Amino acid sequence: MKHIEPRLLKGFRDFLPEDMILRNKVISIIREVFELHGFLPLETPTLEHLDILSGKYGEEGEKLIYKFTDHGNREIAMRYDLTVPFSRVIAQYPELPRPFRRYQIQPVWRADKPQKGRFREFYQCDCDIVGAEDVTAESEIISVIYHSLKALGFEDFVIKINHRSILNGLLSVTGQDAKFLLPLCRSIDKLDKIGTDGVGNELLQNGFSQASADKILNILTISNTSSNDNMEKAAADLMDNEESRTAMQQLKKLFGLLKASNIHERYYKFDMSLARGLDYYTGTVFETVVNEPKIGSITGGGRYDELIGMFAKEKIHAVGTSLGLERIIEVVKTFNLIEVPKSVSKVLIVNFSDETSDYTSLLANVLRADHIKCEIYPESAKLAKQIKYADRLQIPFVIICGSEEMKERNVLVKKLSDGTQTTVKIDSICDFLKKALS
Amino acid sequence: MKHIEPRLLKGFRDFLPEDMILRNKVISIIREVFELHGFLPLETPTLEHLDILSGKYGEEGEKLIYKFTDHGNREIAMRYDLTVPFSRVIAQYPELPRPFRRYQIQPVWRADKPQKGRFREFYQCDCDIVGAEDVTAESEIISVIYHSLKALGFEDFVIKINHRSILNGLLSVTGQDAKFLLPLCRSIDKLDKIGTDGVGNELLQNGFSQASADKILNILTISNTSSNDNMEKAAADLMDNEESRTAMQQLKKLFGLLKASNIHERYYKFDMSLARGLDYYTGTVFETVVNEPKIGSITGGGRYDELIGMFAKEKIHAVGTSLGLERIIEVVKTFNLIEVPKSVSKVLIVNFSDETSDYTSLLANVLRADHIKCEIYPESAKLAKQIKYADRLQIPFVIICGSEEMKERNVLVKKLSDGTQTTVKIDSICDFLKKALS
Repeated sequence: MKHIEPRLLKGFRDFLPEDMILRNKVISIIREVFELHGFLPLETPTLEHLDILSGKYGEEGEKLIYKFTDHGNREIAMRYDLTVPFSRVIAQYPELPRPFRRYQIQPVWRADKPQKGRFREFYQCDCDIVGAEDVTAESEIISVIYHSLKALGFEDFVIKINHRSILNGLLSVTGQDAKFLLPLCRSIDKLDKIGTDGVGNELLQNGFSQASADKILNILTISNTSSNDNMEKAAADLMDNEESRTAMQQLKKLFGLLKASNIHERYYKFDMSLARGLDYYTGTVFETVVNEPKIGSITGGGRYDELIGMFAKEKIHAVGTSLGLERIIEVVKTFNLIEVPKSVSKVLIVNFSDETSDYTSLLANVLRADHIKCEIYPESAKLAKQIKYADRLQIPFVIICGSEEMKERNVLVKKLSDGTQTTVKIDSICDFLKKALS
Repeated sequence: MKHIEPRLLKGFRDFLPEDMILRNKVISIIREVFELHGFLPLETPTLEHLDILSGKYGEEGEKLIYKFTDHGNREIAMRYDLTVPFSRVIAQYPELPRPFRRYQIQPVWRADKPQKGRFREFYQCDCDIVGAEDVTAESEIISVIYHSLKALGFEDFVIKINHRSILNGLLSVTGQDAKFLLPLCRSIDKLDKIGTDGVGNELLQNGFSQASADKILNILTISNTSSNDNMEKAAADLMDNEESRTAMQQLKKLFGLLKASNIHERYYKFDMSLARGLDYYTGTVFETVVNEPKIGSITGGGRYDELIGMFAKEKIHAVGTSLGLERIIEVVKTFNLIEVPKSVSKVLIVNFSDETSDYTSLLANVLRADHIKCEIYPESAKLAKQIKYADRLQIPFVIICGSEEMKERNVLVKKLSDGTQTTVKIDSICDFLKKALS
C-alpha cells in the first residue's frame, strides 16, 4: 500500500484535545454572553455563489477570497466573514423578525500569506442587530464585547469607538475633496504604529497640503488626549460640518448609555484615528485592543446601513461586531486566564481480563447513569500501564475491579493525586465519587 | 448600486434561529454523552491535500469528493468525512496518548446530487477509539450510540451489528473467489429493500452459481430470524472458516458486554446482511436504523485497522462511529422529541425615549448581572409594536420603565401569557423574575 505523508496545508491547523477543551470553554463563555443579550443563533453555508461575497471587502480583501469553480462550473467562494452572508440571509428571508438579533460562531477562510499568528482558516464569533437606527443597538453590541471579555477574565483592554462621518468631517475641514478620504483613513489608522510625525509625512506624500496635514494632526492630538466626556470640545473644529455634528451627538448618547450600563470609562474611548478597513461600514466603527500581547485588535465592528440593501432592494439598518476567537485565545493563553483539564474523564476503569469484563461494563453503566464521566480502558493490559495512562491524562481516579472485587460486589478506588486506595461497595460508588470530586 | 439576488447554492442550507436552537440542543446532548464516555474533542481543517482523502471512500465515494485547485496550484479537497482526517491526525502526532478516544463534531461536504433529505453540506458527530484490538472498544462506541439516542428521546431504533470476516466466510462457504466479495456485499446490503428473491436474482446476475446463491440465502434467512443469543447456531455453516469463527467469538464477547452494560436486547441485533459501503472497514461494522421516518441509517461505523497505517507506516487499531446529525434531527422533528423555545430572551425591556434610556440600560445590566437573559428593544417605538415583537418571539416578560417608573425607581412587569402587570422595585426585580420564571 502506498504510504501517504500525513501533513497539513499551509495556514491550516488541527486542534488537538488540549487546545479544543480550551476553545470549547472560550466559545461557551462567549455564547453565554450573546444569549444573555438575547441574540439568536444562526449559521450559513461554507460555500456561496461568488457574487454574494465579491465587491464587499475592499480591494485588499477581494484578493483574499478563497474562490473556485465547482464541478457544475459555478463560480463559488468560501465564507470570508460572517457579516456578508448574514446580510444575504436578512434579504432572503423577509419573514424574519425585525428588529433581529443574531449570533453566529463559524470558521472563515482567507487566502492570506501564512505567517505567525495568521491563519487561512479561523473562527469568528459575531453578533449583530438589524433594523435599528438608534445607538441603543450599538450600546447592546458594545455591552456584549465588554461582558464577553470580562467573563473571559480580561482586564487590560480598551474598546476604541469612532464614527465614519467624523472622518468625513475631518476631511472637509481641510478642504480636500472626497478622493482624499481613503488615503486619509489609511494614514491615521496607523497613528498608533508610526506616531504623529509618521502620519504627517504620509499625508504630505499623499498630496495633502502642509496646512491640511497640520489641521488634521492638531485635531487628532486633542482628541487623543481628551476624556470621553469632553470629546465634543476635542472635536470643536469639526462642528461646522453637519454630518460630523450628528455623528458627535450619536456618540454622546452612546457614551451615556455605556456609562448607564455600568461599564467603566477605562474600557472604552473615543478615538478619532480609528478608521477600520472594511468598505461596508457607514457609521459607528469600533474595535478592541489589548496592550499585551502585541496582536492588534481582538474585536472589530460597526454600523453597515447600506450592505443589506445590496441584496434587499431597500435600506435596512444594521450594526454588529466580530470577536476574533484566535486572538482572544492567544490572550487567554498568554495570561493563563482559564485553566482547563487535560481530560474529561473523572474515572478510569481498569480492564483486567474477560473474566471480569462484564462487571467492568456494569460499573461503567452505573457511573454514567449518575452523570460521572468515565472510561473503560479498552483492552486488558498491565495495571502499571493503565495507571500511567490515567496519570498522563490527569484522570483523578482509577477503579480496579478484579475477580475478588467482583465476588464481593465492591470496587477498589485509587486516588492518583495521593495514591490512597479505598474499597467501596458498588451500591455506594457514585456517592463516594461525587463527594470525592466535589 | 448593482442588485445581487440573495440565494443559496443548490444542496446548501441556512439555519435560521428556530432550527439552530434545536440543532444546538441536539449537539449539546450528543456532546454530553461523548464526554460521559471520556471522549476528547478534536477538530481538523476544512481543506486537506487531495491525496489525504483520495482512495479511501470506494469508487462511488471518490466521485463525491469536493476537490479544487487552489490559488497556489495545489490539489485540495474539502472534508468528506471525519474518519480519514482523524486517521491522518493519529499518524501525524505520535505524541498523542494511546489508547486515544476522540470526538469530533464538524460539517462535511459531498458533491452529491441534491435531492430530498440529501445535502452537500451536513454535520457529522463522530467518536473513535484508537489503539485497542479488543471489542471492549466496540462496546464503548455502541454504548455512546445507545445513550445518545436514548438521551434524545428515541425509542424505536435498532443497532445492527456484523463483522466483515463473517462476510468473507460467507463467500468462502460458496467456494467463489475473492473478487466476488464486493458484489456479494452490495447485494446482501439491499436485503431490506429488495428481499431474499431480489438478492438471489442479483447474485445470479453477478455470476454466482445457483447452489452458491441458495447457500447464501439460507444462511441469511437463519441469521435474520435468530436471537442474538443463538447467532452461533445461525452461523453454524460458517464455522469451518477460521476467520469467521474468530469474528463470531468477538461478536459473542461484544454482545455479552452490551448486555452487562444494561442495554436491552431489543436495541441491537446481529445482522449478517449488513455490509456498510466504505472501503476502509476491516472488522466489526454497525449501523442504526429507525422504523419511522423512512430515512435509512442514522449512525454508521465499524473497525478500520488498516486506515491509519496508510499514513503511519505501522498498523494501528481503530474503531468508531459517526452519528448523522441531519437524519437524527429529522427523527427528533418527526416525533417532536425535544421542545425548544423560539427565543433565548426571557425579558424584553421596552424602549420609550432618550429621557429614560439610561434607566433602561441600567435595568438591563442589573438583570444580566444576575444571569437573566434579556434584551432592550433597540430603538424607541410604539408600545404595541414592541409587545407584538415580544409576542412573536415568545419572550415571556416585557418590562416597561417610563419616566414615572424611573422617578420611583421601580419597573412595570407585564407577563405576556396572561397580561397581568406588576409594579416591582428595581432592587427586587431579579428575585421577582427568577421566581416567576422557575
